[in-house]
Amino acid sequence: MAAQHVVGIDVGGQTTKIGVVDARGDVLAQSVIRSDIYGADADAYIAALAVAVKAVIAEAGKEGEIRGIGVGAPNGNYYTGQVAFAPNLAWAADKPVDFAKKLSEAMDGIPVSLTNDANAAAVGEMTYGAARGMKNFIMLTLGTGVGSGIVINGQVVYGHDGFAGELGHTNVVRHNGRTCGCGKQGCLEAYCSAIGVARTAREWLEMSSEPSALRECEKITSKDVYEAAKEGDALALRVFDYTGTLLGRACADFVAFSAPEAIVFFGGLARSKEFLNAPIEKALNENVLPIWRNKVKIVYSQLKESDAAILGASALAWEL
Amino acid sequence: MAAQHVVGIDVGGQTTKIGVVDARGDVLAQSVIRSDIYGADADAYIAALAVAVKAVIAEAGKEGEIRGIGVGAPNGNYYTGQVAFAPNLAWAADKPVDFAKKLSEAMDGIPVSLTNDANAAAVGEMTYGAARGMKNFIMLTLGTGVGSGIVINGQVVYGHDGFAGELGHTNVVRHNGRTCGCGKQGCLEAYCSAIGVARTAREWLEMSSEPSALRECEKITSKDVYEAAKEGDALALRVFDYTGTLLGRACADFVAFSAPEAIVFFGGLARSKEFLNAPIEKALNENVLPIWRNKVKIVYSQLKESDAAILGASALAWEL
Repeated sequence: MAAQHVVGIDVGGQTTKIGVVDARGDVLAQSVIRSDIYGADADAYIAALAVAVKAVIAEAGKEGEIRGIGVGAPNGNYYTGQVAFAPNLAWAADKPVDFAKKLSEAMDGIPVSLTNDANAAAVGEMTYGAARGMKNFIMLTLGTGVGSGIVINGQVVYGHDGFAGELGHTNVVRHNGRTCGCGKQGCLEAYCSAIGVARTAREWLEMSSEPSALRECEKITSKDVYEAAKEGDALALRVFDYTGTLLGRACADFVAFSAPEAIVFFGGLARSKEFLNAPIEKALNENVLPIWRNKVKIVYSQLKESDAAILGASALAWEL
Repeated sequence: MAAQHVVGIDVGGQTTKIGVVDARGDVLAQSVIRSDIYGADADAYIAALAVAVKAVIAEAGKEGEIRGIGVGAPNGNYYTGQVAFAPNLAWAADKPVDFAKKLSEAMDGIPVSLTNDANAAAVGEMTYGAARGMKNFIMLTLGTGVGSGIVINGQVVYGHDGFAGELGHTNVVRHNGRTCGCGKQGCLEAYCSAIGVARTAREWLEMSSEPSALRECEKITSKDVYEAAKEGDALALRVFDYTGTLLGRACADFVAFSAPEAIVFFGGLARSKEFLNAPIEKALNENVLPIWRNKVKIVYSQLKESDAAILGASALAWEL
């Protein structure tokens, strides 16, 4: 019964989560290390990561039984195994790092498969989550930014260069669109991320003198907007309505591309589905061709929040 | 040496083109029948088509050597083999027609593969044309409308329901966008098709009194706009600049989806590339993420116009 387990690693800007996962998707052991204390020294980070991974494998009692390691990381490239120019990772911010190769070497040759975090999440949904059994779906991760993982014919779309699925940087507002973190204007991410929601609230508060509980917040976050909406705050409710409408419009164009069975929402902001879902569905169905009207499912991630990222990355390792 | 030939059929609103094609992509014999004289009687049309196909096979001297028949038709569905609710085909305008099954029966069991015309063109480009050797590209057919065929990992994207690749109906103008033939507003097709180009010219002529050779045309077509642009007509040149800019912006979002190696333009309007190419490339590169800037190829179909549609459809039959 050798090699019936995999390791999933989720590399985030602040922390890296590691888990040993069995074929049923149960996380047998897990741990967390910091990602942000190694400065620009990628080798030091990868060495520390290998030590932590070995410790988790030992904790699970699965030494010698690991089939592969799957990693989800910002700007991770499936083809090259590199993490390159990731603004939130100091050790990969200004250079490409041969992450998969180096980690595999540090792990005594266990094969490592790498992709970006949103693609990993899509694989996780397909293997363990809301998209189980689906061969065609689009996953949108609504977090600090907006990421995406696209599955067509049961396979993640990597494209010619490994960077496919950057739907957060498609355009939703052509005229005077907000400047996005990427430097372009009017991107989906500038409106429909956690940061975008807070930005919409701040802009609207400034543009009117409408009363709102949000005026009492020192620095408005998307969580504040959610809490205000729950209390019935009219401005906060309109912020979600606007955000959902832009999301639905964008999704309509994504549907025209790959005709998915479902669009799966994931990430912190997706937990506001009680306010987002109605405007998403309305705008989606108003903006698709009649053949797709009321036919594309809108679903929300069912993975346990704490395990989701690890499971997504681990699912990638089964393909090794 | 049996079964080393295929038949390609291109179903258009007015005519249907038929050709016998060998493995090198040479058209050995071809003919044309009318598509528009059978009213709503799909069976009569398919019977006439089968007679014509048999005649072309006989003319090529390839009786008993046909491996399969590939068909490109408006609203053709690869999964179901149906042509359904195609507004330009009276015999399939208000109902689904089991085209592949019926034609195969009428052809004594020769297998028939069907897809929509734009997907067929994409397969043709991949097999015989500008996309030879490419595994990831997007084909845009700029004709009366705007069609698209998307290839990912060497496979045409059909999606969950067989209708993927309707990029002509993604949005390019959010506010006060033109009403498209599909009923939606601001679709790419409403601006960047032959009809869209003529419409832009007519709108702009009405909005100003700027002198233009186009004022002398009784009913402006995209060909008139092209001829005027060739003579240096300032308004006509701006129409192409605008059309190319909208195309380039739309393509930037398509690139974010599937990260293609190239975008391939096909169809009558694509012959205006001398005026369209510069604004397409400029807008594309201004609107993609830095990772794709100046990296995505813009290419134009190299297939002989007369054979392109037949070849595209025939290429589908090799997969049978």
